[in-house]
Amino acid sequence: MDADAHKRMSEKRNSGYEKKQSKATLEKGLLIVNTGTGKGKSSAAFGMSLRAVGHGMKVGVVQFIKGAMQSAERDVLQRFDNVDFQAIGDGFTWKTQDRERDVATAERAWAEAERLLSDASVQHIVLDELNVILKYEYIDQERVLAALRARPSSQHVIVTGRHAPEALTDLADMVNEVRSLKHPFKLQGVKAQAGIEF
Amino acid sequence: MDADAHKRMSEKRNSGYEKKQSKATLEKGLLIVNTGTGKGKSSAAFGMSLRAVGHGMKVGVVQFIKGAMQSAERDVLQRFDNVDFQAIGDGFTWKTQDRERDVATAERAWAEAERLLSDASVQHIVLDELNVILKYEYIDQERVLAALRARPSSQHVIVTGRHAPEALTDLADMVNEVRSLKHPFKLQGVKAQAGIEF
Repeated sequence: MDADAHKRMSEKRNSGYEKKQSKATLEKGLLIVNTGTGKGKSSAAFGMSLRAVGHGMKVGVVQFIKGAMQSAERDVLQRFDNVDFQAIGDGFTWKTQDRERDVATAERAWAEAERLLSDASVQHIVLDELNVILKYEYIDQERVLAALRARPSSQHVIVTGRHAPEALTDLADMVNEVRSLKHPFKLQGVKAQAGIEF
Repeated sequence: MDADAHKRMSEKRNSGYEKKQSKATLEKGLLIVNTGTGKGKSSAAFGMSLRAVGHGMKVGVVQFIKGAMQSAERDVLQRFDNVDFQAIGDGFTWKTQDRERDVATAERAWAEAERLLSDASVQHIVLDELNVILKYEYIDQERVLAALRARPSSQHVIVTGRHAPEALTDLADMVNEVRSLKHPFKLQGVKAQAGIEF
């Protein structure tokens, strides 16, 4: 592309960008769902939490499944005074092989989530792997939807995990699906490594 | 699902998981590409950097485009001694309307990337929005591929941005595509908000 063509394209894109921005004037707490079978759903949520921490917001995190697992992200986020991090899950559900225990754990985690969702001073919440809890019906979907609907209007919530139920994505303001186009576990026998998988 | 069926399914999944893990024994620096038009590509990369920071790894970040923009993620990551954060870009390319300046900026950013890619003490690198730089041919693709191929074998690199070129995804160990299924900018006139968009 020559310099003139580049300038014309840039001007056109810039005008489109500013037009879009000028129409977008609402501020509201967003419900964001990160789903799909690819990698980075939780990392993207924690990356956004990092932004919120940087803005001095009060941040809440509930881990519904991976709470018992090593998590360097948790170690770092917990260092900040304005982060309330509840790591509760017992690990992967197919590890525990005990539905009653899974349900009890999910209830404990959900109680923390309800506390955060009813506290207007908490501006940014991550409900990590809640989609999976809903998929296995460890918690009643209607209870979750009701709490999300009733939350403070300025509160952002990010729900992560595979298999987001349709009722949740219907309620959401933003839904991102991560698809894995290539994965080293499948391709090359590379094991889970620090800084990448945990 | 009753408790027995749950137990059988859990056992089957657990066995599959352990079989997969036992075959995966390699440790190597991964090249990860986060692309697609959805949200969370950079946040997922920064979330992974947070993990790496938590593991005490030396982390390098080069921002090729958004360097001049406010970034709460940057503010937080820069607080850590083991993070080398180079925020170099001038903002969106369609804002600058000057291809020569964009190329010069990209070259400055790439020089920092080359420095990090040749330093074996740096274990985790994010090249934020490099895909966009390649798409607009601000830097020669072959130079980038050569530097990635020649990097220390244990070094993880995450490249983000829309429009990852095929030559890069071919070289990558892991490719994640984020698709936006729903976005509040389009739907409801909600503006960019702190903690979500920046």
